[in-house]
Amino acid sequence: MGILVVGTVAFDSVKTPSGTRADVLGGTAVYFGVAASYFSDVSIVSVIGDDFPEEHIAFLQRKGIDTSGLERQKGNTFRWKGEYGSDLNTCTTLDTQLNVLADFSPKLLSTHRAQEYIFLGNIDPGLQRSVLEQVKQPKLVACDTMNYWINNSRASLLKTLAQIDLLIVNDAEARQLSDETNLVRAARRILALGPKRLVIKKGEHGALLFNSNSIFIAPAYPLEEVMDPTGAGDSFAGGLMGYLAASGALDDAALRKAVVFGSVMASFNVMDFGPRKLGDLTFPEIESRFREFYRLSFFEDIAAASAEAEDLL
Amino acid sequence: MGILVVGTVAFDSVKTPSGTRADVLGGTAVYFGVAASYFSDVSIVSVIGDDFPEEHIAFLQRKGIDTSGLERQKGNTFRWKGEYGSDLNTCTTLDTQLNVLADFSPKLLSTHRAQEYIFLGNIDPGLQRSVLEQVKQPKLVACDTMNYWINNSRASLLKTLAQIDLLIVNDAEARQLSDETNLVRAARRILALGPKRLVIKKGEHGALLFNSNSIFIAPAYPLEEVMDPTGAGDSFAGGLMGYLAASGALDDAALRKAVVFGSVMASFNVMDFGPRKLGDLTFPEIESRFREFYRLSFFEDIAAASAEAEDLL
Repeated sequence: MGILVVGTVAFDSVKTPSGTRADVLGGTAVYFGVAASYFSDVSIVSVIGDDFPEEHIAFLQRKGIDTSGLERQKGNTFRWKGEYGSDLNTCTTLDTQLNVLADFSPKLLSTHRAQEYIFLGNIDPGLQRSVLEQVKQPKLVACDTMNYWINNSRASLLKTLAQIDLLIVNDAEARQLSDETNLVRAARRILALGPKRLVIKKGEHGALLFNSNSIFIAPAYPLEEVMDPTGAGDSFAGGLMGYLAASGALDDAALRKAVVFGSVMASFNVMDFGPRKLGDLTFPEIESRFREFYRLSFFEDIAAASAEAEDLL
Repeated sequence: MGILVVGTVAFDSVKTPSGTRADVLGGTAVYFGVAASYFSDVSIVSVIGDDFPEEHIAFLQRKGIDTSGLERQKGNTFRWKGEYGSDLNTCTTLDTQLNVLADFSPKLLSTHRAQEYIFLGNIDPGLQRSVLEQVKQPKLVACDTMNYWINNSRASLLKTLAQIDLLIVNDAEARQLSDETNLVRAARRILALGPKRLVIKKGEHGALLFNSNSIFIAPAYPLEEVMDPTGAGDSFAGGLMGYLAASGALDDAALRKAVVFGSVMASFNVMDFGPRKLGDLTFPEIESRFREFYRLSFFEDIAAASAEAEDLL
């Protein structure tokens, strides 16, 4: 079962404590697509300018990604420039050039309309809904958003949230969307807006999965060095959706494993600038890191503890 | 096997987003002692003034705590006043009155010298070592410290660290002590200073356990409301040491469970001002929350994932 991702393709210029890079291939569709490609068929729908080199398209195709939804327009590709603070938790946007993205209006090919796993990247909530109007019978619709839409297009965003299954945002976005500092209360408010599931990404502090009756807390991989956090959220979503599409399951056990596979892909992605490291993995490496996550968070059940406690009382 | 804790007994005046309380019973010895009392025998060594009411001593004794090491001196009991920010992650100390604590020099009774589990609360590193000189043959020595000693008594603190088994600090203290932002690198530097194990507490983001060859990431309990974070770190340490003393084991599996029991006790403690909630628990309640921690962080092993992955490749 295939995945459809609608989102940006970009040239990113980033400065992090580890270095500076200009015009690196990036954007939601790229990071998500590459991460998901290890698990499932994935098609990307996006727009590029006439400055976008064939080698980048070839890179995506080598990862098995369907690029038939990559619309080439007259003008330049979307560009973003940002700088991360010394603790990598803050990022200042220095420049945004929408370019061909300004008039982006996703039109889905018939093959794409039949996809069952849909990821609506961080674009105008109205465009997100226009995608949903075109897909036939999705099994799972997941969605991202950001502070800009929460502030400036709240009404439209709420309409989108009412139509999706899974919202994936970071902790700051969850707090802003719910107007609630405490994340448990924030999650309850967000679930009341429509999504059946909510994932809150907390960067170096891991991720939380909420549904109406349970919470899952996934650890983050304890990296000694983060080269570049750009694309971490999108590669997280790609790993998550990729695993779900591959497994075909949507129960709580599958969702939990999907969140861990998302964390695995994000942990690889931040080890280098751009999607280079992410694109250069093998599935055994991904499985091996999944097992490391398991060992990182494993502790024995209460059964043993309970027997010992009996002795104490 | 019994636990000895050396640390403050205090009257705390705190302001949190949930309210204000004046002269609440507090201090390391109290929070640690009450938390540990559910698991093991615990003796506290501290100093109180002639203003300290008998009812507080009776409260500790009702919890089964040995208060024979509670030295009463002429003058007032140590007082601390602080205010927490709206996100509860920042705390401003408004007033500190050392009072009888100024001349505190712990002298251990012979019964206390024989204790095997020693917790050196956050006091002058020189006093911490004076305790170690008095104990006979400890099985485990754990220690806390704070920014004040890291800044002003670094040389003395390093001597103490060379003599202990387990350091328990928060993330800010770990960064300050190691002069390293990344917590994995910070942990490596701290382990090189002497402690065989290190626990880094991250408040609402859980806790990390490091030894030379493995890392354990424990979740925090997702509370909807934190009334008062005061004593969270000490009740964490009390639950951790209490479980270790009760189990008698010091292997990685025991340490992991101990960190979770520490997290359990801290999660109860922050639900009310002072040690009231912490003192009012039953062991089944503690076990029940341990099980909740287990469910919060449980995900299936790779075995199942691996079989599915085979199908994909």
